[in-house]
Amino acid sequence: MNLRSAFDPPVPAVVLAEGEFGTPEGKTANGVVMHSELFDARAVVDSTRVNARAGEILDHPGATTVPVVESVADALDAVPEAEALVLGVAPAGGALPDSWKADIRDAMAAGCDVVSGLHVFLNERDEWRTLADDHGVRLFDVRKPPAEEDLRVGDGRVDDADATVVLTLGTDCAVGKRTTTFELYKAARDAGYDAGWVATGQTGLMVGAHRGVVVDRVPADFTAGAVEDLVSEVAETHDLVFVEGQAALSHRAYSGVTLSILHGAWPDAVVLADDPDRDSRAHFDQFGLESPDDEAALVESLSDAAVAGISTWGDPGDYDRPAANVYHEGGPERLLETVEEVTGL
Amino acid sequence: MNLRSAFDPPVPAVVLAEGEFGTPEGKTANGVVMHSELFDARAVVDSTRVNARAGEILDHPGATTVPVVESVADALDAVPEAEALVLGVAPAGGALPDSWKADIRDAMAAGCDVVSGLHVFLNERDEWRTLADDHGVRLFDVRKPPAEEDLRVGDGRVDDADATVVLTLGTDCAVGKRTTTFELYKAARDAGYDAGWVATGQTGLMVGAHRGVVVDRVPADFTAGAVEDLVSEVAETHDLVFVEGQAALSHRAYSGVTLSILHGAWPDAVVLADDPDRDSRAHFDQFGLESPDDEAALVESLSDAAVAGISTWGDPGDYDRPAANVYHEGGPERLLETVEEVTGL
Repeated sequence: MNLRSAFDPPVPAVVLAEGEFGTPEGKTANGVVMHSELFDARAVVDSTRVNARAGEILDHPGATTVPVVESVADALDAVPEAEALVLGVAPAGGALPDSWKADIRDAMAAGCDVVSGLHVFLNERDEWRTLADDHGVRLFDVRKPPAEEDLRVGDGRVDDADATVVLTLGTDCAVGKRTTTFELYKAARDAGYDAGWVATGQTGLMVGAHRGVVVDRVPADFTAGAVEDLVSEVAETHDLVFVEGQAALSHRAYSGVTLSILHGAWPDAVVLADDPDRDSRAHFDQFGLESPDDEAALVESLSDAAVAGISTWGDPGDYDRPAANVYHEGGPERLLETVEEVTGL
Repeated sequence: MNLRSAFDPPVPAVVLAEGEFGTPEGKTANGVVMHSELFDARAVVDSTRVNARAGEILDHPGATTVPVVESVADALDAVPEAEALVLGVAPAGGALPDSWKADIRDAMAAGCDVVSGLHVFLNERDEWRTLADDHGVRLFDVRKPPAEEDLRVGDGRVDDADATVVLTLGTDCAVGKRTTTFELYKAARDAGYDAGWVATGQTGLMVGAHRGVVVDRVPADFTAGAVEDLVSEVAETHDLVFVEGQAALSHRAYSGVTLSILHGAWPDAVVLADDPDRDSRAHFDQFGLESPDDEAALVESLSDAAVAGISTWGDPGDYDRPAANVYHEGGPERLLETVEEVTGL
């Protein structure tokens, strides 16, 4: 999917984050408010957090003045210039509540495109398609996998890509892979590299990756091929391609997704994201957690890539390998240096 | 899918293998004729090989007297007692040729269930469903993945299964993983074990695995969970569960499927299938091939399983590890011994 070209230039947007803004479950909404290059968030909808400012909830200076409001109708009153509604959280239970349906209808009536991270696909429902046509707006189902006829088994064509490829993996889910990838991309661009990036999850797509697919929705036969295609496409127009990984090679629930991304991207270097304070897996404490060194050894035994460095929320001095905290000033630049060291960029 | 309970007791069958009987592309048809515990193949349809006997083409004594005929109509003349038509090859290009459609109609009119390994699903076409209803026969789309609502992310519940789990992996595709799994299952049953097995590909399902799913069609998020469910179900009623693996951990196109099966089955022991004469990957000579020792090291670094032995088409004496040729007399029994040694069965 190429959401980036659909929102070029970026547009003012309202972000729906009902019940979850600022929480781990709201990470897509949080990411869009903090980092999106496509959507300039002017209001956040979360009836459980009204009267706060987004910047206070996220502790992010860029979002200081963004109001949190009760409903999309309130948001549109405050931000009449909005051109998109971003559905940045999934409703509990999966089915769309009536109040969300009203929110979506209000946004479409006000001329907003709808960018959905829902598990149900708006484009598959006649009622939504008809309404979008009536209002002349677009519907984007970010989680929808490519059509079967656009998928293929990996064949290694990414090896012919004329670019340096850097993949962010990690020791677990929710350790900052997407943020690390985005910060590396920004640091590289600021340093003068012609850099692009590939998302493998919905937040990355909504934040503005050059290409992306929600890889975990793709039939397992085609996951590596889908990643090859994304990396190859971005490599056509960029010299340096950062790729967002998912989960961990040692994560029994999702490891197949992780390995497909590693083998599909076939990177020159890997950056490994880690949370030093975690002593069991997020949401999967029944599964063992490997150390960064053991996870790095798996990466290197399953690919030709060198693990360049560790991206951590903690103290970079606590690691045997080169490490940096990308949430601190100078962290992304330091992590980029570790990549330069192993790739000879 | 539980095809096994749908064909209990086994039924006389016609196997469609048009253009591919006895070739690697015909492996599903070949496997059904040689090994199926569900379908007693009484005739094979392949207009390019008429007047031969199936046993000669496959070099398999059990199929000595099975005729190869021109069409399903001819097969039904020769085998009026047939109760199933097995579609054991895929047509070139994917679309059903008119002659195959006529074959399927002839079989249904004669009261045969249709068991399809096609990429297109007969149950999704009104014309086929209506015809099946009219003739009172059943349609089975073996490649169809479970419905989304029946899939879940892996959670490790297989760890509670009260059975010994043995997974067959390999150094490449098409090195005998399905045959090895089946031969181990038969040897174990003959040795008095209460054994069952899980298929992860269509041939295994048609041959009679106790449970199975065509794993490569499952969205990547759910592959490990699907395998967990299959293994857990067979473990409920058996003490020893053999699991068919797919591809190889080092196979860049399909490695995600392989690792999902390893992490979903979470076996006590792994048997590794290898073709000693292969010096590049089947259909993927652009990708490197790992040695059995290197592949075994990957298996052991990514799981708690011990690699018990090698299943080979070649000389077992050529390996450093315990090895056996399951295509030779006594081979399956020898391979089962290697499993007994590492699991303490």
